[in-house]
Amino acid sequence: MASLTDQKNRTDVLNRLKRAEGQLRGIQRMIEEGDDCLAIATQMAAVRKALDSTYVRMTMCFMEQKLHAAMAEPSADDSGLDSVLQDIETLLGKVR
Amino acid sequence: MASLTDQKNRTDVLNRLKRAEGQLRGIQRMIEEGDDCLAIATQMAAVRKALDSTYVRMTMCFMEQKLHAAMAEPSADDSGLDSVLQDIETLLGKVR
Repeated sequence: MASLTDQKNRTDVLNRLKRAEGQLRGIQRMIEEGDDCLAIATQMAAVRKALDSTYVRMTMCFMEQKLHAAMAEPSADDSGLDSVLQDIETLLGKVR
Repeated sequence: MASLTDQKNRTDVLNRLKRAEGQLRGIQRMIEEGDDCLAIATQMAAVRKALDSTYVRMTMCFMEQKLHAAMAEPSADDSGLDSVLQDIETLLGKVR
């Protein structure tokens, strides 16, 4: 496959992961301080949602990058596009 | 609702969260180093799975703790058990 090359996209994905990491630390603090399980559950559901949307964001960045490249250098037999679409399917498959 | 009171359970849930936090940091490193998107996606799916199983673990700890307490002090009208079951339903509802 390929890595994220666009700096803006990379920074965006990294910032989301950093936020999720901070949320995870907050949850550990809540447990240590004996907070209510429901409040902790709500925070855990929030981190899960944040990770899911980060995953979608990363997949979209990858698509954008690869499709732009495929459009810039179209091949006669569309094999470049086919390989991009296959990678996208693999990424989307991992989200379930 | 209530907090996790059993020390062993608390430590178990905390250790799982700490591991997930470490995994999240690893993913940030992978992105910074320009790793392949598929490898990153696989790691993100792993963290998600780890968080989900931590959530189930926390819910089970809560159930265990509350059901033991409800059994120890049974009330004539089962209102104690009903309130525990309601809390469990709320927790399980957040997992979707």
